[in-house]
Amino acid sequence: MIYVVGIGPRRDDMTIRALKILQDADVVIGYGGYLKQIRDLTEGKQVIARGMGQELERVELAISHSRRGKKVALVSSGDPGVYGMANVLYQVLGKYEDVKVEVVPGVTAATYTAALLGAPLHDFAVISLSDILTPISEIKRKTRKAAEADLIIVFYNPRGKRRTIPLQEAYQILMDIRKAETPVGTVKTGENGPEVNVTTLEQLSLEDVDMSTTILVGNTFTYLQDGKMVTPRGYHIPHPIHPLASDFYEKYLAGEGVEGANLSCEYYPCHQHPQNCTFCYCPFYPCGDSSTGGRWIKEKQVWSCEGCRWIHQDQTVQCIQGKLDQLLHNIDDLENHKKELLKLRRECVFFTK
Amino acid sequence: MIYVVGIGPRRDDMTIRALKILQDADVVIGYGGYLKQIRDLTEGKQVIARGMGQELERVELAISHSRRGKKVALVSSGDPGVYGMANVLYQVLGKYEDVKVEVVPGVTAATYTAALLGAPLHDFAVISLSDILTPISEIKRKTRKAAEADLIIVFYNPRGKRRTIPLQEAYQILMDIRKAETPVGTVKTGENGPEVNVTTLEQLSLEDVDMSTTILVGNTFTYLQDGKMVTPRGYHIPHPIHPLASDFYEKYLAGEGVEGANLSCEYYPCHQHPQNCTFCYCPFYPCGDSSTGGRWIKEKQVWSCEGCRWIHQDQTVQCIQGKLDQLLHNIDDLENHKKELLKLRRECVFFTK
Repeated sequence: MIYVVGIGPRRDDMTIRALKILQDADVVIGYGGYLKQIRDLTEGKQVIARGMGQELERVELAISHSRRGKKVALVSSGDPGVYGMANVLYQVLGKYEDVKVEVVPGVTAATYTAALLGAPLHDFAVISLSDILTPISEIKRKTRKAAEADLIIVFYNPRGKRRTIPLQEAYQILMDIRKAETPVGTVKTGENGPEVNVTTLEQLSLEDVDMSTTILVGNTFTYLQDGKMVTPRGYHIPHPIHPLASDFYEKYLAGEGVEGANLSCEYYPCHQHPQNCTFCYCPFYPCGDSSTGGRWIKEKQVWSCEGCRWIHQDQTVQCIQGKLDQLLHNIDDLENHKKELLKLRRECVFFTK
Repeated sequence: MIYVVGIGPRRDDMTIRALKILQDADVVIGYGGYLKQIRDLTEGKQVIARGMGQELERVELAISHSRRGKKVALVSSGDPGVYGMANVLYQVLGKYEDVKVEVVPGVTAATYTAALLGAPLHDFAVISLSDILTPISEIKRKTRKAAEADLIIVFYNPRGKRRTIPLQEAYQILMDIRKAETPVGTVKTGENGPEVNVTTLEQLSLEDVDMSTTILVGNTFTYLQDGKMVTPRGYHIPHPIHPLASDFYEKYLAGEGVEGANLSCEYYPCHQHPQNCTFCYCPFYPCGDSSTGGRWIKEKQVWSCEGCRWIHQDQTVQCIQGKLDQLLHNIDDLENHKKELLKLRRECVFFTK
């Protein structure tokens, strides 16, 4: 029996199942660096270390010991199915009969990295930048499509000492498609614990990236909050409708709203000139989502739109108009249909980014 | 202090860190169903259960207990950063000062599912099909781009009792872009353990998919092997060059190769008529990759191309020609440059799929 065991990104993040299997195994096979992390668990067992590039040899050894009736643990860092030993093993397994395999999942770098950065994940892509077995055209295509899709992107194996081109190419694609200020986080693993860094796409230093780094690139919605990366899911924060907003939307629904810049308003421009006042009061208030510039005023527990210009852009107004009228039939809909309204906001944030 | 704890997909797949934190917590907050899974760990603690849809309430409770000096474990199934409690917590956290948070990653459904299906992952996308907080246009865009990128796709929250449209829409997009015979795996979690099913895109029954199902859609390279889904990474299997292949490529390199169908060959058509004989001997042999139809003959440990027509298609020959000449300067390059050759094969498999 072969157990392909994911030992996670570090010792404490190993699963209970992985721990039990390692304790129970006769033979433990893996890359030397990973075996060092679990040395106390493998005392008295046959331990076989093989270097990078010797993956096929590790697999053949595992199969051969298993066929002799041994319980074999074939060790991978993180999760064994994410650029780990599971795929190599299954590829070779086609040669043999009656080898039983159990893949033991582990915490993979994408979610380990995300946890250290805050809460940056929503829909996401995991892409390896290693071009040792993958053509660069494939890496570029995947990066481009993932960027266009507005997926969060987590890059594994981003850069080696002599393998620097794929990261440069991927970076260029991201700079073409995503905003320069898109939040980017990196986590480097090392013997002294993880090294966490939060920056922007523009400021990311490719030279500081190495083999042990995982890079997480935010999407249109990702923002920074007290040093953490957050991609909001868009929960509805219940909130009473402000009387002034209520007055404004009474008029809007009666077809008496303003369109474009309201130059006769005594507060114009309350944000900046020119500004579109069609939605003088934001129909999404409070969105509770800092991706467009709003934020909580902590002392007052009030959602402030002072830093948000989004609702006053012509493009935004164009995207919202028409669609809003399908959701908003009376004032209470501002709160009762808030989930649908927040989805409309999300759609328009993407198209006006 | 708030720990956002991922308890993994099932009890044994919880990490050691998560276990320790749960044992050490004063207050444990979560969805009732998840709390049941860890009941033995929470005896004597304050346990607060809240239903689906009450995520904001769970977060506010966690913050309020934490501010009163308690160690709070806010529980998520799988990984808390993948459609879990981490994002909701951080979104609300902007309202408060001095709340300390640690996100404790867990095994997420994508890798748990992959482990049960075999080794189906390579570069992949994780996409939620829940349209409760996300516009359907966003779900469709992400699915389309991920399909075009040839990413493996893992769908979370694919279908609810009344939420059936997003899966139908995603399925239609996949059927438009991917081959009907693309392998698809589903894993349903339940109290009696996981229910694993491997099928094809065409054969997938949408009616059998529910809230507890994770769907994993293979890419161009994914194949079935003894009931398991495998996406090969493309390892180079060392192999001596066959004397007949050597003779063939001697002529090829001397500019004396055949082009197109070799009707004068006594074995023509060795596969099927019409066939392109330009690469009579496959320059990638043995690719060890069943995605084009080859397979190991287990009794003889020989790689058989009998089921593979790929190298004899005009399109394939067009893709390979020219590029091959840059890699192949003498016979030994067939083995010495095998890694580069396998990358060329990978590129052309994608373009001729």
